[in-house]
Amino acid sequence: MSERVARAALSRLSEPGDVRLTTLVGRLGANRVYELLRDEQDVAGVYTDVAARLRGLDPAKELADAALKGIRFVCPEDDEWPRDLDDLDRAEPLQERGGAPLGLWVKGPLRLDEVCRSAAAVVGSRSATTYGAAVASDLAAHLGEHGVGVVSGAAFGIDQAAHRGALAVKGLTVAVLACGVDRAYPSAHRSLLDYIAETGLVVSELPPGCAPTRVRFLSRNRLIAALARGTVVVEAAVRSGALNTANWTTRLNRVLMGVPGPVTSAPSQGVHELIRARGAALVTRGEDVLELLAPSGSFLAEVPRAPMLVTDRLDDRERRVLDAVPVSRPAGEDSIARTAGVGEPDVRAAMERLAGLRLVEQTSVGWLRTGHTVQR
Amino acid sequence: MSERVARAALSRLSEPGDVRLTTLVGRLGANRVYELLRDEQDVAGVYTDVAARLRGLDPAKELADAALKGIRFVCPEDDEWPRDLDDLDRAEPLQERGGAPLGLWVKGPLRLDEVCRSAAAVVGSRSATTYGAAVASDLAAHLGEHGVGVVSGAAFGIDQAAHRGALAVKGLTVAVLACGVDRAYPSAHRSLLDYIAETGLVVSELPPGCAPTRVRFLSRNRLIAALARGTVVVEAAVRSGALNTANWTTRLNRVLMGVPGPVTSAPSQGVHELIRARGAALVTRGEDVLELLAPSGSFLAEVPRAPMLVTDRLDDRERRVLDAVPVSRPAGEDSIARTAGVGEPDVRAAMERLAGLRLVEQTSVGWLRTGHTVQR
Repeated sequence: MSERVARAALSRLSEPGDVRLTTLVGRLGANRVYELLRDEQDVAGVYTDVAARLRGLDPAKELADAALKGIRFVCPEDDEWPRDLDDLDRAEPLQERGGAPLGLWVKGPLRLDEVCRSAAAVVGSRSATTYGAAVASDLAAHLGEHGVGVVSGAAFGIDQAAHRGALAVKGLTVAVLACGVDRAYPSAHRSLLDYIAETGLVVSELPPGCAPTRVRFLSRNRLIAALARGTVVVEAAVRSGALNTANWTTRLNRVLMGVPGPVTSAPSQGVHELIRARGAALVTRGEDVLELLAPSGSFLAEVPRAPMLVTDRLDDRERRVLDAVPVSRPAGEDSIARTAGVGEPDVRAAMERLAGLRLVEQTSVGWLRTGHTVQR
Repeated sequence: MSERVARAALSRLSEPGDVRLTTLVGRLGANRVYELLRDEQDVAGVYTDVAARLRGLDPAKELADAALKGIRFVCPEDDEWPRDLDDLDRAEPLQERGGAPLGLWVKGPLRLDEVCRSAAAVVGSRSATTYGAAVASDLAAHLGEHGVGVVSGAAFGIDQAAHRGALAVKGLTVAVLACGVDRAYPSAHRSLLDYIAETGLVVSELPPGCAPTRVRFLSRNRLIAALARGTVVVEAAVRSGALNTANWTTRLNRVLMGVPGPVTSAPSQGVHELIRARGAALVTRGEDVLELLAPSGSFLAEVPRAPMLVTDRLDDRERRVLDAVPVSRPAGEDSIARTAGVGEPDVRAAMERLAGLRLVEQTSVGWLRTGHTVQR
């Protein structure tokens, strides 16, 4: 039996992120582990757990059935396997889950390894606010326009907004599910997932047909973090699954980013905590994300600046003199010197420059401010 | 002539933050510097600038007049002088301004040094949003309730909200002005300033009667930063004076803090930039500020947490078993084992614990979930 078929079998038998199993496969190979289990050998206690699922298993047929549905099984031996997934084997498990997946069930026209090379995960609360959803969508669209794939979990709220933002600009997007890629969860996202499968990628560690369970979401989150160079958390209440993805991001030495929001908004609380105490970088725009994900220094986001004013070109003393020039009743240079606390010779020099910039004008009885201080 | 009278004279002659003058005073004493200026000696170019103001100056009378208005002149020789102001003499000047003030004109019943020992500056945009004003006010009230004074600039927007928040809980508040403490700027804040002068402190580097000018606001900002242990910037557009106060805070090795807001809100942009690129700590509540200002470790803000659920007490395998128990049609232990991917002996043990927590119930044909998962 090929390693691929054995991996497909183990993928069906085990729960995702079972470190006992991935450790065994790393040591003995998938084929040998599957053989031991079929011989009812309770290696590392795995047999007891999978015994009920062993009966009637036909992995070769499963692979063929999946192929008929346009689903391929990507294994570590394949070119399409994203090498960065192997970081999971080196990372400390979290909540008893970890390790690289045995394989990934994939549907969609893109090459997973190519998309992941520069992708960003954009995740957050299911119960997002309109603010959060709009920010996630704008951010994803910006990433999409710059050829950066958007990885998310196809859930309600932020996930959905992120996928849609990327799709709206014909960007690349990857939905990572906690159930089989032939299922739609939530079912309201059937057409979204169909569209992603047509233009992007739908990915799962679970074989076709599998239902989502709570623990599978936790295992899924580690894949979202591992398939991207960094994770942006847009809104996350203190109990959000997005914080689990954030944990994995840090554990995998990926870039963790958070979008702030009103401090009065519960869905932003978790993000603020990530920035405050967990070292997440504060990002407000797609450009910030691009800067943080790009190889060091190759991309620098422009710092937002106010428009330049004519008065910005003045030095400190000229500015003081300008402030001392009246708006309505003209004043002489002696009076201006007194008000500004600047000597008369300097006042005279300053008036010349200020007049040249059309900031002041001379009348028969002294100097006056003109109204024009904003440069057009 | 006493140093105090000489300092009062120099305070009237010079513009605040004139480093030439503070350096001279540090070297020669205020009395000697004033003497040199009266002798028309142009030390460090100061005479030329102040010549027009020297005529008719009577500092002793100024001090007496101020006293009649309830205004005292606090000098470095006084017990009331906040020692931390001297940090300004050691800090690098910013925009050609710097140095400790020659003295402070003070109105109000509190001791400046005592209030400043634990005070926080709360500053921000004049054009604040209702969100920003509410946050500033809540934050200041929290600080006020914990005996931490609130220093601000009495401007429209965030400053006003900060003062009012402190006053609302009978907290200590200090208004630092860019004009004489007998003037109200903006004039709409006349009654606010009167109230602060009655219960807190109104402070300025400028003698009574002086008008506010643009450059005086910049000098004033350094005092706000210096009179507090740290500065919280609540909202600040990219051209806000609050960013100048933030610069001084960093320069003085005080704690710089920023309150995030919607990334779509212009008045929050400057704050996000402070957090993103200038090392400001993100704060969302008064508690965060207290924690950052307290001597290391003496105060720890409680991390917001969601309420504990019964299911939090389950281990990973128990949770998987629980997820596999159906809600409507009862299932046997063999079926649950298969769904959960957990061996039957473990399923039996788990069911016992889950039943004890009233998460599942046994029927004649198998197990069912109960509805109660939230702990009361």
